[in-house]
Amino acid sequence: MLRSHTCGELTIANVNQSVTLCGWVYHTREMGGVTFVDLRDRYGITQLVFNSESDISLGDKAKMLGREYVIRIIGKVVERSNKNLKIPTGEIEIIASSLEVLNASITPPFTLDDETDGGDELRMKYRYLDLRRSVIKNNLLNRHKVAKAVREYLDGQGFADIETPFLIKSTPEGARDFVVPSRVNKGEFYALPQSPQTFKQLLMVSGFDRYYQIVRCFRDEDLRADRQPEFTQIDCEMAFVEQEDILQMFEGMVKHVFKKVRNMELGAFPRITYSDALKYYGNDKPDMRFDMLLHDVTDLVKGKGFKALDDAEYSGAIAVPGAAEYTRKQTDELTEFVKRPQIGAKGLIYIKYLKDGSFKSSVDKFYTELDLKKWAEATESKPGDLILLISGELFVARRALSELRLEMGSRLGLRNKDVYKPLWVLDFPLLERDKETGGWMACHHPFTSWKVEDERFFETAPGQIRANAYDFVLNGVELSSGSIRIHDRKKQEKMFKAIGLSKEEAEQKFSFILNAFEYGAPPHGGIAFGFDRFCSMIVSNQENIRDFIAFPKNNAGRDTMIDTPDGISDLQLKELGIRLEPE
Amino acid sequence: MLRSHTCGELTIANVNQSVTLCGWVYHTREMGGVTFVDLRDRYGITQLVFNSESDISLGDKAKMLGREYVIRIIGKVVERSNKNLKIPTGEIEIIASSLEVLNASITPPFTLDDETDGGDELRMKYRYLDLRRSVIKNNLLNRHKVAKAVREYLDGQGFADIETPFLIKSTPEGARDFVVPSRVNKGEFYALPQSPQTFKQLLMVSGFDRYYQIVRCFRDEDLRADRQPEFTQIDCEMAFVEQEDILQMFEGMVKHVFKKVRNMELGAFPRITYSDALKYYGNDKPDMRFDMLLHDVTDLVKGKGFKALDDAEYSGAIAVPGAAEYTRKQTDELTEFVKRPQIGAKGLIYIKYLKDGSFKSSVDKFYTELDLKKWAEATESKPGDLILLISGELFVARRALSELRLEMGSRLGLRNKDVYKPLWVLDFPLLERDKETGGWMACHHPFTSWKVEDERFFETAPGQIRANAYDFVLNGVELSSGSIRIHDRKKQEKMFKAIGLSKEEAEQKFSFILNAFEYGAPPHGGIAFGFDRFCSMIVSNQENIRDFIAFPKNNAGRDTMIDTPDGISDLQLKELGIRLEPE
Repeated sequence: MLRSHTCGELTIANVNQSVTLCGWVYHTREMGGVTFVDLRDRYGITQLVFNSESDISLGDKAKMLGREYVIRIIGKVVERSNKNLKIPTGEIEIIASSLEVLNASITPPFTLDDETDGGDELRMKYRYLDLRRSVIKNNLLNRHKVAKAVREYLDGQGFADIETPFLIKSTPEGARDFVVPSRVNKGEFYALPQSPQTFKQLLMVSGFDRYYQIVRCFRDEDLRADRQPEFTQIDCEMAFVEQEDILQMFEGMVKHVFKKVRNMELGAFPRITYSDALKYYGNDKPDMRFDMLLHDVTDLVKGKGFKALDDAEYSGAIAVPGAAEYTRKQTDELTEFVKRPQIGAKGLIYIKYLKDGSFKSSVDKFYTELDLKKWAEATESKPGDLILLISGELFVARRALSELRLEMGSRLGLRNKDVYKPLWVLDFPLLERDKETGGWMACHHPFTSWKVEDERFFETAPGQIRANAYDFVLNGVELSSGSIRIHDRKKQEKMFKAIGLSKEEAEQKFSFILNAFEYGAPPHGGIAFGFDRFCSMIVSNQENIRDFIAFPKNNAGRDTMIDTPDGISDLQLKELGIRLEPE
Repeated sequence: MLRSHTCGELTIANVNQSVTLCGWVYHTREMGGVTFVDLRDRYGITQLVFNSESDISLGDKAKMLGREYVIRIIGKVVERSNKNLKIPTGEIEIIASSLEVLNASITPPFTLDDETDGGDELRMKYRYLDLRRSVIKNNLLNRHKVAKAVREYLDGQGFADIETPFLIKSTPEGARDFVVPSRVNKGEFYALPQSPQTFKQLLMVSGFDRYYQIVRCFRDEDLRADRQPEFTQIDCEMAFVEQEDILQMFEGMVKHVFKKVRNMELGAFPRITYSDALKYYGNDKPDMRFDMLLHDVTDLVKGKGFKALDDAEYSGAIAVPGAAEYTRKQTDELTEFVKRPQIGAKGLIYIKYLKDGSFKSSVDKFYTELDLKKWAEATESKPGDLILLISGELFVARRALSELRLEMGSRLGLRNKDVYKPLWVLDFPLLERDKETGGWMACHHPFTSWKVEDERFFETAPGQIRANAYDFVLNGVELSSGSIRIHDRKKQEKMFKAIGLSKEEAEQKFSFILNAFEYGAPPHGGIAFGFDRFCSMIVSNQENIRDFIAFPKNNAGRDTMIDTPDGISDLQLKELGIRLEPE
């Protein structure tokens, strides 16, 4: 080793030892003939002292050091007079007796502190420098800790980590596949997996019983903020289980990880059905850190001559605690907020339930004090609360109320960064309408089984069939999805038919799994966690995926550091038997 | 859970308990009104007893069970009269009181025993059934054990498991890349990584200090037996180290894994230079389980009028212990063996050093007893040995001798399956001639540093430059390669130039790493283990990669189970902006 110690380990116990350290010059300062250098490595920072009075040439050399130079020094550990108790090495410093520059550095294009002056673009182009910032460095080290805790738990529960292939087959369901042209089989393509779904099911057919993998997946999606074309999944499957077994098993996993990584104990995870989640929170991944439930007041508000509400499919309201004193400017702001195109409400009605028990509202023209009193009761409001009402199409109005609820939660400081509220959402629908084609498509994926009692809806109302599907949600963020699978060929064929896959397509793309179900497929089910998001939520309690991926792509799917995607040579194209379409 | 226990855990301690088991019908047999079923799951086999006398309908149901049916039974654990002490559950059986068929099975196309009647092709097409065979199942479970032991060791040594991207940039060095057309950036391509080489070096530049990853890699190579287009690597890198530190660290890792997985202690790993490996074993990955060294007798055998040897660039011989009694038929066989095109020797000379001290050879015409005596001395032969000599071009003759040595080792039973002989091979050359272009190419990869004292050969004899590169070899199989890297822009540019990369190409493909070296790149080095091969060697002491990969491709790069690669739709092609070349 080029060093005897790291920059994070020397303490008062090492005083008088001769040591060799390597690292990066983080900060330097000169004070009366002495140069102080904060030497940084992955493990910490140690203060070096170069004294020009005792060694001029050494002192001169130290003065030449620039930011981010890589150096190696020999020196003696001494107690500091001016201690820094904020860092583990803050009680000592090293009196350097020798200095070797292992590599120089030109000046970094941005500062490498936690609060950097580098914009996103610059940070991404020089990601190898951005990764030196301790906040990003710690994110990645914590990501490893999360992976380790996950493996520890699943290994302990008898799950086998089995690798599945990356060069697989393009299938017509779900998002778009990335494809890989085959040179050896010209004109043919592999596809990169969107998930190892069918392979993990085959492993259950093989009898592996409990499988997991922390595995890269790929989706060629259209660009959206914070979506990565490649992402990592904790992928799991179990045989001979029912839904309850899976919920228990993975509730245990999440608890284990929180204990190991954050030293936090999470209590039992509450559960809610998909339909209740929509009813009370307006979406299927409610943030449970605060209540402020949606109340359906559709019928209550009708019949007083206010056309917008009289005609509405749905009117819903939330009671915002203690916000009755909101000014006109503030309520106008909220109206603007819900009318933004991405939220899409037509307007916002407010009722201030004043401390003195009186009401002041934007609909005083149509509703009496007594009417509003009933609204207050219906929304369980107390004097001092602000009641906010949105009406319109059920789907749109609920979604808008959900956004408004989250916004009010944030404004009122109810979405505390130190609080975690886990939740299972159950009984998702099996099928939903494809907006483009109008046909039915799988809500989760086409290998999901359904509730036996809903079988009858296949002919009459496919949208009403409930799947044996569940999501794990944390503070409003969906961290995992899973389901009990189909393990019967006939049922699988029925599902393929329901989503409009012809017998021929089903056979061409999925014959391997249809066939596998004929050779003794056991009942099985599983779950997959979005690992990038999982890490981000556990470590920072916010969705900030890019800061938890070592080398992420930007929103255009580009890695600007290595500059890819990129052209390839004509020879490569020729060998692959493909040609570029002219623009 | 659908079961109370697995099929591998019930013992005499459970007698009288009521249990519920699930699993596959492995074997059934009927004996006087009683049906015995061996129920199999991942964990073992448990014998079930269905008694028609006590329950006719249950007995009838049991009689209908076919091979590989998935069933669930309730029953009582009883002690067996006829114990099978070979399996942990062999002292008990279950008297079944209830039987539920969870799924039927059609008859598998081959038997699912360790010795199967299924050929390779059938086994691959029905891989999900092949994986039920306990030998393959155990391979994969052991693979997980190896991964676990590797992680345990590296985690313990402070290595950070950091994920690197799969959608990267096509580079002109090494094997061919698989490429991935970008839909969003039409006409441009990602490439799948042949290894995370540059990324792990960037992580060192970032200061992560110790990195590892068990990671999938991709190489679009021409077809060869037992090569997979996708394979897994244990990829590692360390900063502030010298070669010796890396050898020590990973010697420790291999020992740890052997201890954990095989409960074997490996002693210190011997080391040999690349040039000695070639000299004494004829190849750079010698099997050290036996000696039978190559002896250079080029000069010794010249000057006696035997033209083939007089003119030879190289003549080498091995002494095969105790094989002097080989018959003419046997020596003819060996001659045929070395003359096969893939070995390519022109012929084989043998000298039998008989027990009585006399010699009998295929070159008696040219050499006297005294001459042959000298050969025997030079090859350290003893009476009873068979001396085998091959001559010709140095490279070809050595390779042929190496193959012959391995063949004789096998014939003499010297390559014992229970013996492991690890070895470090050091000082590989930096550059070698590209057979196609005649230019120089990197032996390891172009990021490898060289020995300072060989710098002078760049101008005069590039082939003589020794790299700071090392391989780990086990029983004749190369399991890992590594090197100390270049960490200086100028040196990296020199290397790119040496392998014929123009300044423009280097800049276009590798500017990110050249630039990174200007921002304080630390000295660093690393190693990568071929994980599939590593598992195969540790578990079975043979190179049998496919039996250690859950879903391997065949020699044509096809997965015949899912039938890929495959055509993609015209719409997909259009979206990607590519067209197939007409045949």
